[in-house]
Amino acid sequence: MLKVLTLDKARTLLLDELERLVSERHTTVAAPGETVSLAQACGRILAEAIVAPFDVPSFDRSQVDGLAVRAADTFGASEALPAILNWAGEVAMGQVATQPLAAGACFGVATGGMLPPGADAMVMIEDVEQIDDETRLVTRSVAPGSHVTRRGDDTRTGQVVLSAGRCLKSQEIGVLAALGLSQVRVMPQVRVGILSTGDELVAAGCARPDHLANGAHAATGPENVPPGTVFDVNGPMLAAAVREAHGLPVEFGIVHDQFEDLATTLQHALDQTDLVLISGGSSAGVRDYVERAIAAAGQPGVLLHGLAVKPGKPTVAGICQGKLVIGLPGHPVAAWFMFEQLVLPLLAVLGSRTPVQRTKVQARITSRIPSNHGREEFVLVRLMPADISDAGQSVAWLAEPLPTRSGLITQLSTSDGYLVIARDSEGLEAGCEVDVTLLQEGGPSWNKPI
Amino acid sequence: MLKVLTLDKARTLLLDELERLVSERHTTVAAPGETVSLAQACGRILAEAIVAPFDVPSFDRSQVDGLAVRAADTFGASEALPAILNWAGEVAMGQVATQPLAAGACFGVATGGMLPPGADAMVMIEDVEQIDDETRLVTRSVAPGSHVTRRGDDTRTGQVVLSAGRCLKSQEIGVLAALGLSQVRVMPQVRVGILSTGDELVAAGCARPDHLANGAHAATGPENVPPGTVFDVNGPMLAAAVREAHGLPVEFGIVHDQFEDLATTLQHALDQTDLVLISGGSSAGVRDYVERAIAAAGQPGVLLHGLAVKPGKPTVAGICQGKLVIGLPGHPVAAWFMFEQLVLPLLAVLGSRTPVQRTKVQARITSRIPSNHGREEFVLVRLMPADISDAGQSVAWLAEPLPTRSGLITQLSTSDGYLVIARDSEGLEAGCEVDVTLLQEGGPSWNKPI
Repeated sequence: MLKVLTLDKARTLLLDELERLVSERHTTVAAPGETVSLAQACGRILAEAIVAPFDVPSFDRSQVDGLAVRAADTFGASEALPAILNWAGEVAMGQVATQPLAAGACFGVATGGMLPPGADAMVMIEDVEQIDDETRLVTRSVAPGSHVTRRGDDTRTGQVVLSAGRCLKSQEIGVLAALGLSQVRVMPQVRVGILSTGDELVAAGCARPDHLANGAHAATGPENVPPGTVFDVNGPMLAAAVREAHGLPVEFGIVHDQFEDLATTLQHALDQTDLVLISGGSSAGVRDYVERAIAAAGQPGVLLHGLAVKPGKPTVAGICQGKLVIGLPGHPVAAWFMFEQLVLPLLAVLGSRTPVQRTKVQARITSRIPSNHGREEFVLVRLMPADISDAGQSVAWLAEPLPTRSGLITQLSTSDGYLVIARDSEGLEAGCEVDVTLLQEGGPSWNKPI
Repeated sequence: MLKVLTLDKARTLLLDELERLVSERHTTVAAPGETVSLAQACGRILAEAIVAPFDVPSFDRSQVDGLAVRAADTFGASEALPAILNWAGEVAMGQVATQPLAAGACFGVATGGMLPPGADAMVMIEDVEQIDDETRLVTRSVAPGSHVTRRGDDTRTGQVVLSAGRCLKSQEIGVLAALGLSQVRVMPQVRVGILSTGDELVAAGCARPDHLANGAHAATGPENVPPGTVFDVNGPMLAAAVREAHGLPVEFGIVHDQFEDLATTLQHALDQTDLVLISGGSSAGVRDYVERAIAAAGQPGVLLHGLAVKPGKPTVAGICQGKLVIGLPGHPVAAWFMFEQLVLPLLAVLGSRTPVQRTKVQARITSRIPSNHGREEFVLVRLMPADISDAGQSVAWLAEPLPTRSGLITQLSTSDGYLVIARDSEGLEAGCEVDVTLLQEGGPSWNKPI
């Protein structure tokens, strides 16, 4: 009999096991990664270090429109006593300056153009006067290197410009492009198997073109919901949550409450994915099937069964065939919280990336929240701006606790965030200051649509 | 001659113009939106309100494993004096309870199962004793509604569960799934045309399979960089930045410094996209082409030319054929900052979504940063943890300013963030406290790889 764990202990246990599995795998498997185009690389994790194969820029480049000169030829030049230089022609953009710059001469070079050999500075066009076809006056002296990006100033040949493990944002895509790379090796996306169990579940109906045509939804109407059944919420919801965490969901649909069916589908999922999520119907029978299927799929099998947390108590987890299997609660809100709290950190490790961090704000709760001593509790809240003219207010938000029932998915969607009541607390008094983790894009929705 | 604008004024001008254009379009075009599957809907913006077509759940549902009863039959029950109920059978999961519950009777119902007509409460299995095949003892009284999710508790028929404009996260995908929806109408992604101009630009080389095979990169080696040319950084970088902002980049490649070519490609981009980004080579000649092409493409043409900002001065913007065209600087760091500061808010309006908010931290700068009075300045910084044992420290981070040269893309990629020097400031003294906008996933990288 496994004892009920706290969420913290469960998270630590699973992270430790996973890190052991990952390090074992790294010693037996070739360097991971897949090659993708730069267009597909945005948001992915680099699988190998990028070494500059050449200097960037690969030549001395002008930063201004003006004259390429030997700086020494301009020393002492001023409006009153300009330097006189011989015009040697233009260096066209994208072309090589073939002729070296002679002493006392100058070339016209535009911004981004190549300096001719022998030139060590640029004079801005504003400080130049044309006397005739062959002569230019320079009315200000420049130091060597002025207005010039030297060859290799950005990157030198052999330099590591990006290390393995870097997240490729637009800036890094720019660095790869500067090196002329059109493809790059990135870590594979974490493949997450998703299956829902329960005889009461039915899959969402197919689109009905006649409904779409007149602007209505592709809904399965009430006449298509067999009495006593409910649509599978967890499958599509968890697939979306996996995508938000940069993973690749692999959906195995609904498995009915039959041990053999569950065992077979779990084996398919283990074969095809890196981690498996089974969201169980919450009845005792289904819970037993999930636990038995994990135990039967391989050693060490079930690692934990039951968490001291609300919602999320009926959570199961184990390891089979070197892969983690998490049995999430059947109630959608409970499944969502356990994904957020337990699965997200695991996906970060598997994907070699920084865990997703949600924004938190400080708020004052508007009413007392009772809680059961002995289990950690997540409470959904609605936020309202605090009256900042009130001198006693130290926080910008008021948090109104919402009755957090694990079956009610609509409430999860309309809440602004959640707060956590610690395991050793017997609740929070009205007026308490708490951290609220935000769930809405762009912050609290108090003045936004549902 | 257009005068140089501040960044704030330019942003306000373009946002005002865009909102006018968008509101004009809404009066002439049919309801926007495209229909996508739930799997594709994650992260998209809902284009129409979702009204529940039926009650969720569509029947009274048990929250526990136990007995469905008439609560009144249990009143006064205790361990010492249990209520005696007649066993009427099981309601199987996903099945209808056909027979109504008679007074003094009970049905076995598992979590998520349907209560039979006449039952108004559940007794938990822990509070039940089986006497024989036909009799059960209930050792605790329950109130009407106990352990039951009533029909419609989550959502009632006709209720607006999600309004148009909501961002579809995993929670909202769960709500849609609960209604049996497999498709949903979302706002189209903003299509952003991207073209790079400059005779000095070449596109990234094609992959060379021989290099890939032995683990090297698909790089174009130095022998493939024609002297005097540079690889196009802005095209791939801006495409990635558009993707990060949930837009759809449409890449038009490199246009050489020929007015007719630029005008033709701009027209293609205006035909196919919602907003066009031209990143100009920074030489005076190319700048002129971009401005002329915008002016030639339609009224009112160029709205601004030149910003009092560093980097980013040679920015141009206008409206042609009812669409915004932004001419970004050719230097990659300048182009990136002007995308961040000027284009991101415009994409948010076009996509009907909340602008992307970057995290900021407070930091103390380690050395003086001089600045030109009269233009706003963005300075890249590296962050290091402040010594928190030092009593005088009020911030957790020290910010080391990096020489921010607009051509050096590698530096943008390796910096932790940036600070802003106001237009009316002549610089910042060492030790100043500043806000640093973070650029790395998961916060400062002081202990992470390059």
